[in-house]
Amino acid sequence: MSLVVQKFGGTSVGDAERLKRVAGRVAESHALGHQLVVVVSAMGGVTDSLVQLAKQMSPAPPSRELDMLLATGEQTTCALLAMALAELGVRATSLTGPQAGIVTDGVHTKARIVNITPTDIVRLLDAGEVVIVAGFQGQTADGTLTTLGRGGSDLTAVALSAVLKADVCQIFTDVDGIFTADPRRVPDAKQLAEIAYDELLELAGSGAKVMQLRSVELAKRFGVVFEVRSSITGLPGTTVGETTQMEEVLVRAVTLDVNQVKVTLVGLPDTPGTAARVFRALADRAISVDVIVQNDSHHGPTPTTDLSFTVEAADRDSALSALDGRGLGWTHITAEPIAKLTVVGVGMRSHAGVAATIFETLASLGVNIAMISTSEIRIAVVIAREKSEAALCAVHAALVA
Amino acid sequence: MSLVVQKFGGTSVGDAERLKRVAGRVAESHALGHQLVVVVSAMGGVTDSLVQLAKQMSPAPPSRELDMLLATGEQTTCALLAMALAELGVRATSLTGPQAGIVTDGVHTKARIVNITPTDIVRLLDAGEVVIVAGFQGQTADGTLTTLGRGGSDLTAVALSAVLKADVCQIFTDVDGIFTADPRRVPDAKQLAEIAYDELLELAGSGAKVMQLRSVELAKRFGVVFEVRSSITGLPGTTVGETTQMEEVLVRAVTLDVNQVKVTLVGLPDTPGTAARVFRALADRAISVDVIVQNDSHHGPTPTTDLSFTVEAADRDSALSALDGRGLGWTHITAEPIAKLTVVGVGMRSHAGVAATIFETLASLGVNIAMISTSEIRIAVVIAREKSEAALCAVHAALVA
Repeated sequence: MSLVVQKFGGTSVGDAERLKRVAGRVAESHALGHQLVVVVSAMGGVTDSLVQLAKQMSPAPPSRELDMLLATGEQTTCALLAMALAELGVRATSLTGPQAGIVTDGVHTKARIVNITPTDIVRLLDAGEVVIVAGFQGQTADGTLTTLGRGGSDLTAVALSAVLKADVCQIFTDVDGIFTADPRRVPDAKQLAEIAYDELLELAGSGAKVMQLRSVELAKRFGVVFEVRSSITGLPGTTVGETTQMEEVLVRAVTLDVNQVKVTLVGLPDTPGTAARVFRALADRAISVDVIVQNDSHHGPTPTTDLSFTVEAADRDSALSALDGRGLGWTHITAEPIAKLTVVGVGMRSHAGVAATIFETLASLGVNIAMISTSEIRIAVVIAREKSEAALCAVHAALVA
Repeated sequence: MSLVVQKFGGTSVGDAERLKRVAGRVAESHALGHQLVVVVSAMGGVTDSLVQLAKQMSPAPPSRELDMLLATGEQTTCALLAMALAELGVRATSLTGPQAGIVTDGVHTKARIVNITPTDIVRLLDAGEVVIVAGFQGQTADGTLTTLGRGGSDLTAVALSAVLKADVCQIFTDVDGIFTADPRRVPDAKQLAEIAYDELLELAGSGAKVMQLRSVELAKRFGVVFEVRSSITGLPGTTVGETTQMEEVLVRAVTLDVNQVKVTLVGLPDTPGTAARVFRALADRAISVDVIVQNDSHHGPTPTTDLSFTVEAADRDSALSALDGRGLGWTHITAEPIAKLTVVGVGMRSHAGVAATIFETLASLGVNIAMISTSEIRIAVVIAREKSEAALCAVHAALVA
């Protein structure tokens, strides 16, 4: 008998009919004799509606009360799922995050899990019940409701898998698994049977929105192997874990993010601390900077330099105003829309030549490279948006297909 | 500085705008320097929607999960009210029933309060916060969510008033208070400044749906004086407590319930235990019987009797089927729609003559009395529905106006 943790997200539990289908899927797993813990998100659209209601009360509602409000979304789903299972003859009990023993810090709307005491979960499992847990929520040590922020239900599932030492953790979602590239853009893209934590972390940071970084980091830290799979098809998905049998695999996946902007500060005084002031100003506004390139200094009476970096398009205006009027001394500032192509693979650690293949492929398409950034398992190139889709397909064909 | 408990029901918090008006009212009370505990119901229609969702999952959802689901309604309202108060600059904190320390038995969907440990409420009040408590809910000693059944938010308000020894308990509702008769039917009806618990209990059992019996009983048991008042007008309402200065007042109010049916079992064998079997059969289906009259026996070889009683019109079919095929031995059964006119007043305890006035008034209208039932502070007469509205006005004019 295995202990299986399953998580169903907002699309999978989008309405009453889908929730009943989820119940059917859970009942099948239960019929196989598994002990089951099922983590659910709020039904699709519910969280947004609640946020709208909150906005009607206050443009900036207190975060403690926002948590109190939002937590009702998952509580609703888990109660309804327990009812649907009862109707199928499966004994099931729903628990809120606090009832499941999830204790967090007090940072409302993005709390971190401090510890989990799953006494009631274990008792119910031992009694043969399916245990349904409201994802995304917990409580502080003194009993105040908290929520875990975006992707919080994945986090609940991974954390419960760790503490319960689950045999299997399945993250059901509206995609079939993780692909070598976005199949809507790259017809050759293939679903991956497995991927390493580090690769998925790089992908998550590169515009592939399969899972939030936090859940993958937590899974890596506690060695929780999990499977991302479709709630619709029921087919096997992609298993995420430590690298195994990966000697042969050089590149795991290629992603393209076209929602990037390249900001350039021209004629910045080339003095110590200038770059620090630039990125502190951005950090103060919680703007994430990805690729950074500093050109050679222009020598002269006052040495200057050109500093370029990429930010998400949504952060463009905020970045520009953060850097304006700070006395940073640049002569002018530009912001141009660009695309970022990222190649990820733990096999690259011990292999040279991947960068060369990328550059040759782009050159053959006449695509100019504006910036380059590399890590042990990632190569990212910043290019113009126009030919970026073609570049994605070509690089995928050269390295993965 | 007084400690004030205020309760706002479903209509008062029907939508975002009304909820903001409630916030304004609470802020006014807070500005007067009172310590405030505010109990709220689910927003109008929310509970019904949740029940509909539950029905989509299962025609008969498990009551534990129904409680888990329904409790989200009040939690939503109290979080939103806290936000609206914050927007008005009033420091407010919302608490679920369990967080407020409300412990109940485990009878889901109609749990009874076992005890309340208002540690967090007191701490927050002492810190100058307005405390908003989700009505209608609590948890068992082992942490399972429960709901208190119909009128549960009133119950929460009264119980909190008792345990906190509140100076004032205000039940805000969509009526101005309690009247000598339904003002939609009786133009002469006047609002009462005060009424005794026992009178309100009789009224609640006589078709005047101001409050559920349980809350009034609880208030009486713990001596909680409360005021029923309008959430719209802001005018003084009706104070409910022990009788005071009531020597002069003979009759407090007159009610009319036209949703009654008189059931008659004709030719019932007049043997010991027959009536018991009839009313046990009704009790088994949770049918409340009000007025009961047994006519004289028809003497003969087998003595028989005619037994009549009134039930709510909604229970008519259930009552008839409960009494059919039980071998009770009646020759035939009738069920006719009737009206019940009830006169209530603690002053009647020491005064004769009220019944005579009622009978004379009805006789002058040509209204026949089908059944009569009396208690120390109540006289109820069952009459035909046709002239019942006129009878109500006439009796009100004779005894109250």
